[in-house]
Amino acid sequence: MIAHRGPAMSAFMHELREKGRTAHRTESDILIWAGSGSAGWEAGIVNLLSPGDTVVATVCGAFGERFAWLGGKFGLNVHRVEVEWGRAVTPEMFGEALDVAGDVKAVFITHNETSTGVTNPLKELAALARAKNALVLVDAVSSAGAMELCVDEWDLDWAFSGVQKAWMCPPGLMMAAVSERAIHASKTAGFKRFYFDLAPMLQAAREGSTATTPAVSLLYALDAALDAIHEEGLENVWARHIRLGRAFRAGMVELGVEVLAEPGYESSSVTAFRTPGGLSSTDLQERITNATGIVIATGQGPLAKTVNRVGHMGWTEQLELDATLEAIGAAMR
Amino acid sequence: MIAHRGPAMSAFMHELREKGRTAHRTESDILIWAGSGSAGWEAGIVNLLSPGDTVVATVCGAFGERFAWLGGKFGLNVHRVEVEWGRAVTPEMFGEALDVAGDVKAVFITHNETSTGVTNPLKELAALARAKNALVLVDAVSSAGAMELCVDEWDLDWAFSGVQKAWMCPPGLMMAAVSERAIHASKTAGFKRFYFDLAPMLQAAREGSTATTPAVSLLYALDAALDAIHEEGLENVWARHIRLGRAFRAGMVELGVEVLAEPGYESSSVTAFRTPGGLSSTDLQERITNATGIVIATGQGPLAKTVNRVGHMGWTEQLELDATLEAIGAAMR
Repeated sequence: MIAHRGPAMSAFMHELREKGRTAHRTESDILIWAGSGSAGWEAGIVNLLSPGDTVVATVCGAFGERFAWLGGKFGLNVHRVEVEWGRAVTPEMFGEALDVAGDVKAVFITHNETSTGVTNPLKELAALARAKNALVLVDAVSSAGAMELCVDEWDLDWAFSGVQKAWMCPPGLMMAAVSERAIHASKTAGFKRFYFDLAPMLQAAREGSTATTPAVSLLYALDAALDAIHEEGLENVWARHIRLGRAFRAGMVELGVEVLAEPGYESSSVTAFRTPGGLSSTDLQERITNATGIVIATGQGPLAKTVNRVGHMGWTEQLELDATLEAIGAAMR
Repeated sequence: MIAHRGPAMSAFMHELREKGRTAHRTESDILIWAGSGSAGWEAGIVNLLSPGDTVVATVCGAFGERFAWLGGKFGLNVHRVEVEWGRAVTPEMFGEALDVAGDVKAVFITHNETSTGVTNPLKELAALARAKNALVLVDAVSSAGAMELCVDEWDLDWAFSGVQKAWMCPPGLMMAAVSERAIHASKTAGFKRFYFDLAPMLQAAREGSTATTPAVSLLYALDAALDAIHEEGLENVWARHIRLGRAFRAGMVELGVEVLAEPGYESSSVTAFRTPGGLSSTDLQERITNATGIVIATGQGPLAKTVNRVGHMGWTEQLELDATLEAIGAAMR
């Protein structure tokens, strides 16, 4: 590894941030912390908002629930736009909630709800929020790198992800695209903060450094992954995910398995489905792992026992999904 | 890698925490976050304290300064025990400060001041604080793994470090030894917190998991490093560091270079010295790197230009220090 305070590191960080900008379709800033994706919720809140601020939050699964809950924990006035798990938050509902909430400082949008395999219409929701001049905070944990995410064109202020999802890296980094408006908002944000404080991180980043010791080996992995993504072509990566998602869902229909996501809002990075064959989710999980070594996930929260999930983002190929479909079919018999 | 929510991970985490306990000489808890060492300051403050609490902080260099500053930023009433950079905080000064400060909720002690190569007498300082029933928060970033640190015997409450120092790992993890008293204090601590919150992390850890996604590849590295440390023997590791520190300082004396640390308090993990030969610290640094590829550090803060530092912790051998001494000697000529 290289000395993390030396000139080689500085050149590396400038290049890495540039690759990150391209991958987020933004010309403003990319900041990267040693941390987990979950840290992105907190970092967004404490840097952009103040206790008592009103926010509107999409809640359509475990991760939206968590973002909204955290807002409340930090003393925000949170208006929830809540739908049944498996459904999406539509522009109609969101617009109505924005009107009801009144003077909205920010919105929290879960781009892709990992717990249900539903993709919310981020572009449309963000446009509604921006029309009311609200800051747009986006949980892009299982969408960034897998599906269309145009930070500048969609006018997003804080879009964060964990690198272990579609960015195809070992876990341990949280990456955020930060707008100029977010940086401006951070100057009057009323939360005590240090580790996740934007200001010193931004200053260091612009000098090719980090405010605290960077996780160098993980940054190398991210650099290599971003190279691979850019080599394939960002739009090709998005198209591949759409293809894989469609093919997987078609396979599920063939098996007679019910996909959880509302039609039209199915995620191209993860599919959740009702556990078939009268099994519990852990039964299905165990049968498949024992028979094939393939690891599928269970549902979360109220869907923990009745739903399973299969990720198809990042390093995923059709052959793997075919094998997974076959394994699910075999476990049902 | 293994699925970070599966049974293999759970077994791994239980073993890793047990190895961490042994290395910290504690039977209570070891928690590990994806983050940098700096996060340990904030995590300790927000979990154990409340705004307005009175603390006494040792300030004898850049890192003690930072810990004390952070306490103030978070609204604590910070009494500083400040000495000239290069000197140690003695039990006499510390005892006096505790008396003056009155009702002290906690103390912040920098065990080893990385910026000056001074080791504070942690055992004695902690005893004074415990006699007044204060919680003991210890920045052990450049001491843990290199020098004697007996969390239970010395009755410490929050001793944290970054794994990239004497733990010999790639950066990206913050590890903390947490006493039962600290856990109790966290129940009434008055700060908003989420990512660094003790309670969910502790609950998850006891189940062999983590509250948020763990940095799995870095945990592997830590596991391997702790194995290496235990194989050498913890006390042998401490003794090796003492030997290396002594030999390096003896070499400096031979070169006629002035070691910064007050006699009797010299660190066995890092040596700071007045930049010799009429050079600036960056001049010396560049000459050495250009000639040999060896990377030495400059001083920090007010000592940035007039002091250099050489780390001799973790994966360090006598031969490397000999080469470094030779390079310093050559650069002086």
